Amino acid sequence: MPDLRPLPTVQGRAPRVSKQCLANYAGKPENLTFVHTSGAMGMTAIGIALWKYCMRYAPANPDFFNRDRFVLSNGHTCLFQYTFLHLTGYKPMTMAQLKSYHSERTDSLCPGHPEIEIDGVEVTTGPLGQGVANAVGLAMAMKHLSACMIGDACLQEGVALESIQLAGHWRLNNLVIIYDNNQVTYDGSVDICNSEDINTKIRACSWDVIDVENSCYNVEGITAALMRARSSKEKPTFINIHTVIGVESKFTSDAKAHGASFGEDKVTNIKRKLGMNLDKHFAVPNKVYQFFSDAGTKLIPLKEDFPTSLTASRKSASLCYNPLASKLPNIMVGTADLTPSVNMAWKGKVNFQHGIQEHAMALISNGLAAFNKGTILPITSSFFMFYIISGTIKLRPVWFKLVADTEQQIHIATHDSIGTGEDGPTHQPIELAALYRAMPNILYIRPCDSEETAGAFVAALQATSTATIILLSRQSLEQYPESSSRQGVQQGAYVFIEDEQAQVMLIGVGAEMVFAVRTRQVLLDHFNIKSRIVSFPCQHLFAQQSQEYRREVLKYRSGIPCVVIEAYTVNGWERYADAGFTMSTFGHSLPGAAAYKYFGFDEHVIAPEVAKLVDEVQQDGIKSLRGEFRDLNPVHH
Amino acid sequence: MPDLRPLPTVQGRAPRVSKQCLANYAGKPENLTFVHTSGAMGMTAIGIALWKYCMRYAPANPDFFNRDRFVLSNGHTCLFQYTFLHLTGYKPMTMAQLKSYHSERTDSLCPGHPEIEIDGVEVTTGPLGQGVANAVGLAMAMKHLSACMIGDACLQEGVALESIQLAGHWRLNNLVIIYDNNQVTYDGSVDICNSEDINTKIRACSWDVIDVENSCYNVEGITAALMRARSSKEKPTFINIHTVIGVESKFTSDAKAHGASFGEDKVTNIKRKLGMNLDKHFAVPNKVYQFFSDAGTKLIPLKEDFPTSLTASRKSASLCYNPLASKLPNIMVGTADLTPSVNMAWKGKVNFQHGIQEHAMALISNGLAAFNKGTILPITSSFFMFYIISGTIKLRPVWFKLVADTEQQIHIATHDSIGTGEDGPTHQPIELAALYRAMPNILYIRPCDSEETAGAFVAALQATSTATIILLSRQSLEQYPESSSRQGVQQGAYVFIEDEQAQVMLIGVGAEMVFAVRTRQVLLDHFNIKSRIVSFPCQHLFAQQSQEYRREVLKYRSGIPCVVIEAYTVNGWERYADAGFTMSTFGHSLPGAAAYKYFGFDEHVIAPEVAKLVDEVQQDGIKSLRGEFRDLNPVHH
Repeated sequence: MPDLRPLPTVQGRAPRVSKQCLANYAGKPENLTFVHTSGAMGMTAIGIALWKYCMRYAPANPDFFNRDRFVLSNGHTCLFQYTFLHLTGYKPMTMAQLKSYHSERTDSLCPGHPEIEIDGVEVTTGPLGQGVANAVGLAMAMKHLSACMIGDACLQEGVALESIQLAGHWRLNNLVIIYDNNQVTYDGSVDICNSEDINTKIRACSWDVIDVENSCYNVEGITAALMRARSSKEKPTFINIHTVIGVESKFTSDAKAHGASFGEDKVTNIKRKLGMNLDKHFAVPNKVYQFFSDAGTKLIPLKEDFPTSLTASRKSASLCYNPLASKLPNIMVGTADLTPSVNMAWKGKVNFQHGIQEHAMALISNGLAAFNKGTILPITSSFFMFYIISGTIKLRPVWFKLVADTEQQIHIATHDSIGTGEDGPTHQPIELAALYRAMPNILYIRPCDSEETAGAFVAALQATSTATIILLSRQSLEQYPESSSRQGVQQGAYVFIEDEQAQVMLIGVGAEMVFAVRTRQVLLDHFNIKSRIVSFPCQHLFAQQSQEYRREVLKYRSGIPCVVIEAYTVNGWERYADAGFTMSTFGHSLPGAAAYKYFGFDEHVIAPEVAKLVDEVQQDGIKSLRGEFRDLNPVHH
Repeated sequence: MPDLRPLPTVQGRAPRVSKQCLANYAGKPENLTFVHTSGAMGMTAIGIALWKYCMRYAPANPDFFNRDRFVLSNGHTCLFQYTFLHLTGYKPMTMAQLKSYHSERTDSLCPGHPEIEIDGVEVTTGPLGQGVANAVGLAMAMKHLSACMIGDACLQEGVALESIQLAGHWRLNNLVIIYDNNQVTYDGSVDICNSEDINTKIRACSWDVIDVENSCYNVEGITAALMRARSSKEKPTFINIHTVIGVESKFTSDAKAHGASFGEDKVTNIKRKLGMNLDKHFAVPNKVYQFFSDAGTKLIPLKEDFPTSLTASRKSASLCYNPLASKLPNIMVGTADLTPSVNMAWKGKVNFQHGIQEHAMALISNGLAAFNKGTILPITSSFFMFYIISGTIKLRPVWFKLVADTEQQIHIATHDSIGTGEDGPTHQPIELAALYRAMPNILYIRPCDSEETAGAFVAALQATSTATIILLSRQSLEQYPESSSRQGVQQGAYVFIEDEQAQVMLIGVGAEMVFAVRTRQVLLDHFNIKSRIVSFPCQHLFAQQSQEYRREVLKYRSGIPCVVIEAYTVNGWERYADAGFTMSTFGHSLPGAAAYKYFGFDEHVIAPEVAKLVDEVQQDGIKSLRGEFRDLNPVHH
């Protein structure tokens, strides 16, 4: 039986914290300067109430499934969390580790903001406000308490405000936000930047609100508020704790009072309360691991099951994930109010979100993924442009160093590129491919038809330690059953149409593959130029292939020029191509087909430019291309 | 005297709108299918109240300085705005143009979301919620009324919630938000995603709230609410207008009733009320144009005025903008609660923001820039990572096609790259350079020392039709007064240290220039390899130079390999270099200098890798590098 702490319920009064207790927490190791200690010290009583009297957790088994989850949204006060992890007996969090905070130790477990791989840290936080959304995701994933610690600044962040509104609507009674109300921000007193009535505002969002006054030593009051929050049946709880920043900053004493072990009592009670099998201990049901096996990929339709007529790839995607979603019970979905538009509906779908808050959606997805290895596979879907607008990039913190844990997520981004059409340039994300292709540990996949879309899903399901974003078209696309290959997608790039006598190589990508295929025909018919086509849906997957495979696909040293065709800015393709027919400006509000034509995406515009390049190489040699990448698109608006 | 409309004040009752009026607005041109009409039709009475009875504007002179500003935050209902612009006599907005909505006309003035270059449109909107922040910016820039129309969805977006909180705190009594409360979103009824008490929530943010019931025809009630908002002395006003989506969708009649001219009366009264010179008409004082002249750049310190000792470039920047800010009256600054950290303080500074809301800050800056040609130069400053996290990318809508108007903004992004140090990977933006370098019409400049920082400011001040983001270090940097050049920065890249016998070329960038300079020395001392260094602070500026200049700087066809050294992912540098010593993973929480070392940024690690490349080229020829870009950094964590 594990060392489960603390006592699941507290009998009688919680003691007032002594100066000695504060000292144990906030005492500075000799000769080190700790930053961000003042805020943490003001929060000491809160920490004692949480870790000694209210939260359920098991330091010797940090991944104990039924633990309560704590999120430090004001991540810069991480010393607060590290110290309590130390005091409560998380083995790796030694005193030597505490001393490594802001040091040059490369193996420090005390980085400047909490990171997910540290035992006792549930999610990586730092950018203010985002922890609130993570905590909402954790609360949704379980019946246990999700406690989120925030500061003044978090309450000014839109993502926190979005999440608070959602949690109230969803009646997440197991969520508690603990507001360290010290009224001081970096620039000075909060009243220079905020004059709202926060309690009224939060109550208006359907939350319970509890005030705790004079709280630097009021462990009893905080504990009572937390226990009331835990027993809430209807609403999430917001505890407004009035503290003083930097209170009592110099003491010395002994850590034992709060580091003492509490033994294993009451585990049976907890398990009964939570509806678990009493005979099993720390057992995660096998079924939660099964999802990520290859079994899932067999559920995806075969190539011959796909339509051969024009099909939007957002439609192809729905043909892939509907069977997955109906058979795999661990999928949860958020669509940010675009359910019909992103084709995200099936019988028995479990939504984790209704509403417009894309930023909160992305971070709730993070919380769901961080909940427990393989338990839940979050899938989000929205227009591609909204991912960046609304903060999916904030997901980056969980993409760090995912060696051991599974943090798989799938993001289905529809309406990619200028094919989006009439919604206009604000909705045509021509520069975002460069960002996601530059981001470590994420698969950015643009499939060209249904078969490649299937390949994208297989790759996403197999990538159990990373997130995947699949880019899908709004408009209908040609299908290429004779050329396209799901296996090829998993290798990042592959030969789509071969020609041993090719004088030029075309790279086709996603929804613009059609221009590569048609240009190849025009080159042959009108310019007597032979070409080969490489489909290149994912740069990161291609980079993982052997040098031999990569050289074979791209005909290394063949001396023929290579042209990429894609309706995004070209940045990054220079690694693989000598020239690009791409976008150099923002888009335009036109029907999708007309938008392509307006920006020169037309085989009769592309082919002559490619022919000129072939001609130049014949005259000046292939060496003329090195160091002078060519932007072939003659259309500038 | 201009055709100023409408009457500045309304005497007596506003008439109830008739079915004929509705028809004039919402009537569908024959044979066209209009999308997003239903919401617009429900808002008809609101439009009549605004354009006929409440707002001051001049269709014949859309840039009339003292106009009220209207922002359509729910931009997808743009047909609402286009139609009223037509009815009220904005000349370019002809009936033929209205018919071009969602058509294939490439010169359409009716794109799927409103864009700033259209007469009568103040800011580009579309992504929900952002218009609220823009309207806050417009309200701050002037004494006139800033009216912002929103839908249910806007109120769920964090950026709107941030802005509402700020506007209440700032007592922006000239701001009115008009909430088209139709209780329907794309996924269905609003109550599936929201159960908050919105009026109470907004009042808690220090706003006046007015309800208007049964409003599809209640022009009188809406007008009264708007006039009450206009006369508010203390607070911004939120008008909750209960409408029915898609009301009365089929009528036919005549546009004249609302398109009629109102003549020029009352202009004198308005001008007296607004404290303007009565003898001047539509005159924008010359001083508001002067800011963007070269005069500004003369205020920047000379090279010999800068320190030659180690200096953080965030410090260098403050040496540049302090004299600018103290002499140029039109600068307004937002720092998102990081004033001391980004060195943004000077005597007499005008803040446009206190508080943490970076997302709102970025969009308020947009609103300020959009206010009137050259009137205000917004400068924002924050940590680089927070720009992306918090939505500066949302600024992209104003970066479109800025041919005629000035939309200059300067963003000062400090704490760039892993040199940021202990704050850890969440704060080390190693992938973001790729995004901004891929984004059209923005100058992304990474200066290497004080002189280059001066060059970055000169470039930013001269770029009167674009935004600039200047990337600055937290850590102290070597100064290179003998090599660095502000003129060179303005050309994007330039020869930093020449060597006619160079066997390899190093590209140094920003805070990592030091590694290029030191590597050059180690190559010479330990490997007997001669090298030249190119400083490359801005790719977009370099791309604007002549081919001759570019070939000279990069030694086109010289046959020597080129290696870029930068602590960001390499994506995009493949255009100019054959190899890179760069980042391939997220960062690590360590002191800045230790973080560099941890990731291999050390001349004794870099030089041997460069030497190997030089050796390989001598054996296999320069041609071996084409099509196989080399990632030289051997360190992978």
